[in-house]
This record gives sequence, C-alpha cells and structure tokens, in this order.
Amino acid sequence: MEAAKKRGMQSVAFEDPPVLASWAAVVGPKEGQGPWAKDFDWIFDDYSIGEKTWEKAESKMLRETVKLAISKGNYQSRDIEMMLAGDLLNQIVATSFAAREIGVPLLGLYGACSTMAESLALGAMLVDGGFFNRVSASACSHHHTAERQFRFPTEQGIQRTPSSQWTATAAGAVILDRLGSGPRITCATLGRVIDLGQSDSADMGSAMAPAAVDTIKTHFQDLKRPVDYYDLIVTGDLGKVGMAVAQQLFVKEGIVPQPNYSDCGVLLYDDSQGVDSGGSGCGCSACMLCGPLLKKMVEGKLNRLLLVATGALMSPTTQHQGETIPAIAHAVAIENQ
Amino acid sequence: MEAAKKRGMQSVAFEDPPVLASWAAVVGPKEGQGPWAKDFDWIFDDYSIGEKTWEKAESKMLRETVKLAISKGNYQSRDIEMMLAGDLLNQIVATSFAAREIGVPLLGLYGACSTMAESLALGAMLVDGGFFNRVSASACSHHHTAERQFRFPTEQGIQRTPSSQWTATAAGAVILDRLGSGPRITCATLGRVIDLGQSDSADMGSAMAPAAVDTIKTHFQDLKRPVDYYDLIVTGDLGKVGMAVAQQLFVKEGIVPQPNYSDCGVLLYDDSQGVDSGGSGCGCSACMLCGPLLKKMVEGKLNRLLLVATGALMSPTTQHQGETIPAIAHAVAIENQ
Repeated sequence: MEAAKKRGMQSVAFEDPPVLASWAAVVGPKEGQGPWAKDFDWIFDDYSIGEKTWEKAESKMLRETVKLAISKGNYQSRDIEMMLAGDLLNQIVATSFAAREIGVPLLGLYGACSTMAESLALGAMLVDGGFFNRVSASACSHHHTAERQFRFPTEQGIQRTPSSQWTATAAGAVILDRLGSGPRITCATLGRVIDLGQSDSADMGSAMAPAAVDTIKTHFQDLKRPVDYYDLIVTGDLGKVGMAVAQQLFVKEGIVPQPNYSDCGVLLYDDSQGVDSGGSGCGCSACMLCGPLLKKMVEGKLNRLLLVATGALMSPTTQHQGETIPAIAHAVAIENQ
Repeated sequence: MEAAKKRGMQSVAFEDPPVLASWAAVVGPKEGQGPWAKDFDWIFDDYSIGEKTWEKAESKMLRETVKLAISKGNYQSRDIEMMLAGDLLNQIVATSFAAREIGVPLLGLYGACSTMAESLALGAMLVDGGFFNRVSASACSHHHTAERQFRFPTEQGIQRTPSSQWTATAAGAVILDRLGSGPRITCATLGRVIDLGQSDSADMGSAMAPAAVDTIKTHFQDLKRPVDYYDLIVTGDLGKVGMAVAQQLFVKEGIVPQPNYSDCGVLLYDDSQGVDSGGSGCGCSACMLCGPLLKKMVEGKLNRLLLVATGALMSPTTQHQGETIPAIAHAVAIENQ
C-alpha cells in the first residue's frame, strides 16, 4: 500500500492526468451579447428555452450541454460512466432532472459557484484513481431562477447595488477521459470554508475573495510551483469588487499580483451590459472555461491554466437568521503537455 | 496505465478497502425514545441544542457528530484531510456552516437522503485511489427544519397522511482511514436517477423504491455476488409503504425477498411513536449505520452489510410545477474481513 499521492494537506497531483477530451458551453441571450459570443457552442435567445418555467429551462440547458459535450467528443451517453454535477437551485433540481433524462449514474454536488471546479477535481480523482474511464463534470446557473430564489423575482425590478453581481444563464460540461489527447488536469487543490465576517449578500465577491486567495496560496505552497507558473490564474466569480479585494490580499500574503490574474465574473460581460460588479453563478466559470478558455488552450494561446472557482455558501435562510457568508474555492490546474 | 477497477458500469471494488476507523451517531429526543437509544453516542433532549434556530441546531448537530467521530478515533481535526458531507437544507447550509467551524477542506454533496452512502462511496474512492489517507463521511437531517422547508412548519400542526414519513433529527459521521482495523468498505454501486412517475411528496417511499431495487439488482449483477451474500441489506428510508413496494419489485426482478432485508426508516422508530410509514431524512440511514448497525458489526453479529441509502430528488418548486419525483440510491458494502 503506497503513501497517498497528495502533496500537502489540500492538494492532489495526478499520476496519469485525466484528459479533457471534449466540452461544451451553452449560454443565454445576455451572455451571447458579451465579448465571447463566437466561443460558445449554443446561445439561446429565450430564457425559457421552450419550457414552461425557468427551472425547467435551467435543467434543459444543463442536459443539452452535457449531451453536446458527449456528442462533440464522438461519444454516446452509454460511454459516460458517471455524471458529477451541481447547480444553485434548492436541492440541485436542475442537475437531478437533467440526470434523469441522460440516464448516467449521478454524484450530485453542491459547492455554490465553486461547483465546476469541484466536479472537475472529483472527476479527475475518480478517473486517475482507476475507478472510471470516462466521466462528465458540469455545472449550470440561470439568472431568473437564481434571482427569485436568492434575492427578488426579476419581475419586481428591484434596484441593484453597485457591488451586486449578475447570475449568468450558462452551463459548461467537460468529458474527462483516462485516455486520448487534449489538455489535462494535472493537479487540484480543495478548499476550506473561510468566513471573515462579511454578511452582505449583495457583495458576494468580498465574501469569496479570502477563500480564493487561501486556496491559491495553498496551491502554490503544496505543489511548490512559482507564482508565475501559470499563463492565467482565473478566479470563478469575484467580480470587480471581489477581484480588487483579492488583489489586495495577494499583496498581504506575499503573492504579488500578476498580470496573468483575472476573474471569470469580470471577463464574461462587457462593461456596457449593466452587470454592476460582474457575472456570478455556477455557470459563469463553467461557460468561461468550456468556451473561450479551453479554446485558447487548444489554440496554444494558453498552456497552463489555474481555474479557481469560488462559492458563497449562504442561503436566504441563513441570511435572514443573521449569519455571515462562508465561502469556499477549489482550484484545478489544466495544462497542455 | 491499468484498466479501471470498476466491475460493471456502476460498481467499483476497492483494492485496499478503506477502514471505518471510527464513527459517531447523534440523535434528537424522539429518536432517543425509539428502540436503539443505547446505541447512539448522544441523545439531545431539546431540538434547538442551545441554538437560536433549528437550522443552527442542525449545523451544530453535524459539527458535533463529526468532532465526536474524530475524537472517538483518537484523531485530531488536523488528521482529517477532507470532509465529505451533505444535508437536506437549501444550499446544504448545515454542512457548510459545520465545515466552517471544523476547518477541514470540504466537498459538499447533495443526494437528498442518499447522502450518507454517497459520501461513504466517494470517500472510499478518494482513499483507495491514493489521494487522501483519512477523510470523514457524514450526513444529517433535522425534523423541524425539513418540515418547514419541504412541507409545513410544524407549529401549524398539519395532519399527516399514513404514507408520510418522519424526518429524523439525527446525524452520522464515519472516519475512513487507509490503515487501521475495523469494518471495511469493500465495494460500492452508484445509482442512476429513476423516476417512474410518482408525484406525491407525502409518499416518498414509493418514489424511491424503484431506485433502490435498480441499484441493488445492478450491485449483484456487477459484483457477481449471490443475493444471499449479505447478512443484512438495508435500504435508507423507504418506510413501510416503500419497503412493501421494494419487496414486490424484488420478486418482479427475480431477486427473491430475503429475510435479511430491512429498511432504516422502518427500523429507527417504534410502532407506537406515531411516525406513520417510518423515518426519513439523510440522518435516518446515517444514524442507523453509525449507531446500531456498526455496533452489530463490531460485535460480530453482522459481518456483511449492504447499505443502500435512498434519496427523493424533488424540491418544493418542482412539486409546485407539477413534476414527478426523481429518485436515486447508492449502495456501499461494509464487511468484516
């Protein structure tokens, strides 16, 4: 029995790094009007996608994204041995109902907006650990389902604060394969729950920034990689406000802010789109990864990417009960080798 | 690169079966008045456990259960490299807030009442795969938080139907260790989402029974074990109504019902306790496993146990939107070797 493969307390390095064999990104109308329209597989023009409710639309979006990733890789559904997925809805129903249609065994996850990295990290462990040959890792969010569940129904037209973020209507799915060619997940760092006492749910970026920096710092320590190792370090959805907090914390922690650091929430939309601090939601980092970022990796414009998806783990109930916002961040390193 | 270790599409067998090195079960007052009082580690006599809200109480219960499992095994929190856990609350806040206090990295799971088996199966893969030496797997539920979230606030005194189940106030936690002595997780079968069209959330047992039978049938096929291999096959929380459905489906599927089959939801309470069809909630199978069942294994009264935790994956929103109830079941085999 060998010693565990992990390096440091929270990080694992893969012996046979699983391959990102195919992927898909599907987004809603607003995301399709942003800077990355040409990099998404499908932009739907109606938030209901032909369904009677937004929740059903969200589930359909995830289902179609996973199916698209399967078909883009020339796989059949039966080739996928396990679906790891999650979303923001209560009881992750977008995921469960999508899995019902796809027919693949499900491991349901909840990591709020950190879910894409959680599913990739876990999926990579299950493949590299020798348990499965091929799994899907995915996550999604929908602006209108999230707003009415976490804040106010969008029909009410409640005024937004400058620090608030815009939940992306988007989904991303990756097929991880033991064999094949493509970028690989080489290592991952799983996050601790960090809560520095921020309680304003209209400023989730500030709540999540310390968790992101904690995970990034741990990643570099555990893996003994220099801070300029990556071509791009991208956090999940800190937005402009949270990204500024993260950059301050980088200095405090001795990680000098790099020109190679950015945030999916800042990148996803154009400044003119009225999203205040930026994008958020599980789908934000999921669609940025499975759209523009992996495209850049295939083109060789990026070779070493660290995706650090971030999640704010509160619920409306904990907010009403006066709790602060616990946050988490999981990091996965994706590399051309 | 070797072929995957799994046997069949949905099942994995462990090369070095992880050890259940320690465990703890904590329950509420009603569960402490049932048949298994002497087998639980702590029975609290007040649903609020000194907290201001039931949600905070639920999180405290999970936190204390995990800490108790850690200390019973003579571990420190820092010895535990990963916490895999989930609960029924929106955004699994009982889990996230518990993890905030424990300080261990978190992989948040949502499998409704199947969570205990999901966390054990995943935890065993992470340990046997060589990624971690020691992880905790846990789940919890609280009667009053679940009732007000999924059905009606208990203060309303709404009449219950005979097929309804009583969400257990309970938590269970296991420390899985790569080394050491104790019962071991030898194999696991991960479930598909099954939905045969049942839509009555006051009869979750009937919705979950087909998923339980599907997973059990797949388990025996994949692992090529005879149906009388186990001393006890125990489903999570089908209750009396669901267990009767499962027994009919066993006959239909050619798995003759065995005297060694039972259900945690049927076992947890005494008939006199007014729980209608029986117990439910993530905590139901979690406390039965970590209380009486593992005690019987240590005493040698049980040597081969198949825990098949079952989850109903609906939400109040999907119910209101006219959806039927998707269900899932994950199985873990725990054996004295």
